[in-house]
Amino acid sequence: MSTELWYTERYEEHGAALSLKVREVLHREQSPYQRIEIFATESFGTLMTLDGLVMVTDRDNFLYHEMMSHPALFIHPAPRRVLIIGGGDCGTLREVLRHPEVEEAVMVELDERVTRVAERFFPLLCEKNHDRRAYFHFTDGIAWVQEAEAARYDVIIVDSTDPVGPAAGLFSTEFYRACYRALGEEGVLVGQSESPLLHADLIRQCQARMAEAGFGAVNSVYFPQFSYPSGWWSATLGRKGLDFDAFRDADARAFTGNRYYHADLHRAAQVAPAFLLPA
Amino acid sequence: MSTELWYTERYEEHGAALSLKVREVLHREQSPYQRIEIFATESFGTLMTLDGLVMVTDRDNFLYHEMMSHPALFIHPAPRRVLIIGGGDCGTLREVLRHPEVEEAVMVELDERVTRVAERFFPLLCEKNHDRRAYFHFTDGIAWVQEAEAARYDVIIVDSTDPVGPAAGLFSTEFYRACYRALGEEGVLVGQSESPLLHADLIRQCQARMAEAGFGAVNSVYFPQFSYPSGWWSATLGRKGLDFDAFRDADARAFTGNRYYHADLHRAAQVAPAFLLPA
Repeated sequence: MSTELWYTERYEEHGAALSLKVREVLHREQSPYQRIEIFATESFGTLMTLDGLVMVTDRDNFLYHEMMSHPALFIHPAPRRVLIIGGGDCGTLREVLRHPEVEEAVMVELDERVTRVAERFFPLLCEKNHDRRAYFHFTDGIAWVQEAEAARYDVIIVDSTDPVGPAAGLFSTEFYRACYRALGEEGVLVGQSESPLLHADLIRQCQARMAEAGFGAVNSVYFPQFSYPSGWWSATLGRKGLDFDAFRDADARAFTGNRYYHADLHRAAQVAPAFLLPA
Repeated sequence: MSTELWYTERYEEHGAALSLKVREVLHREQSPYQRIEIFATESFGTLMTLDGLVMVTDRDNFLYHEMMSHPALFIHPAPRRVLIIGGGDCGTLREVLRHPEVEEAVMVELDERVTRVAERFFPLLCEKNHDRRAYFHFTDGIAWVQEAEAARYDVIIVDSTDPVGPAAGLFSTEFYRACYRALGEEGVLVGQSESPLLHADLIRQCQARMAEAGFGAVNSVYFPQFSYPSGWWSATLGRKGLDFDAFRDADARAFTGNRYYHADLHRAAQVAPAFLLPA
């Protein structure tokens, strides 16, 4: 008889759980902010959890990281200065820095240990960390945005954990207002906005709050993400001024090497399920 | 201390598992073909499993049933005669019979017990079972199609279990050829084709085999489905003659009461992820 190890994340409120078979526990530590654990799984490569919740697996993180970055960056006509709030595993930073137009990508992550652990166990996600355009600040993202000069950034990406605890403020109208102020004239804000199946109200709330904060066009993108609750995820985007129909289609078509996002998916991913259409 | 009951489906090949919290076991039987079990879950309503695999939950079956039926029916210019192979829970039949153009929906399911158990525990899915347009035959679907007159059906829906055991033949070129023959001039075939994340090769194979069987236009639709492996699912469609761009857009726009599918999603759902685009 052999021993089997499984990592299980319970979605307590939803009476469901996802389990991944584990070969080995690679690392465990308690940072000043959270418990960071790294597992070698049988079929999903390396897995990082924070306080017991899946953050990233080798096998399916491409879905989330591509959808958190490329729609926003191709909506902006010239994304030169990008701010990432959170995103400690550096996968979003890597996708952002694949865009040649980007001159500066500032990542503001609360917990430096997440990034240091990612550098050790997710070298692919961190492959752009030494790009000369990458800047790291390990501090509070909300204060960072509030203190930013007006019109400092072209794109702000909120790559946060769930809207509880320290991340809750990243889903507030007040924070979206600060983002609006910190964005230039055609600026784009994008934030992860949880599962359409389990958190439809949160998506509607993010959209309403971004509109309230002044964003002229607001929409969400919907995409699969096996290792997050329900396997279906969303990001909500706010754009200053123009609507969402305009995007750099030709540039998106010329952008190769993606596994999920492409120019035709840009619009398709914005089509909401019937139950999330405006009444 | 309270006792917790969980139903767990292991995706053995993929080192993963999904669990749903259970309040009560409502029914268990061994039919001539398989073990049928019904559970009352905490958050997903009633759950049916066959041989331990999730078939349907109250909460998320709308995704699968809408996507197995409406894209195919709105692609066909006048879907009067529809054949459903499998689909014993009757959820697909129900969606098909919501189309007023349909004059006859023939459901050919191997295991009558699945349907009888569904009638008892999933009354909503079975609400159209007594529609005068519904015909049930509890027999082998492959033989049914092979023995059908030529051009007998407008749409054939293969709502099957995984491509192992008795369902394997439903994924063969030979079966697709028999469907082609049994379909009228603008006939449409659709079959469930598993997870894009876990079974991309199967999707490519279904597309290739439908083309080999003579279908002039072949494409897949991609959609979320929490309770199936990876939370991301697909159906593959073959159309005689015309391409997929034509569909009854105005009729789809006038069709209300869906929770997932709608006219704009019709095309969006057909946009493949980058890793499944033709090279």
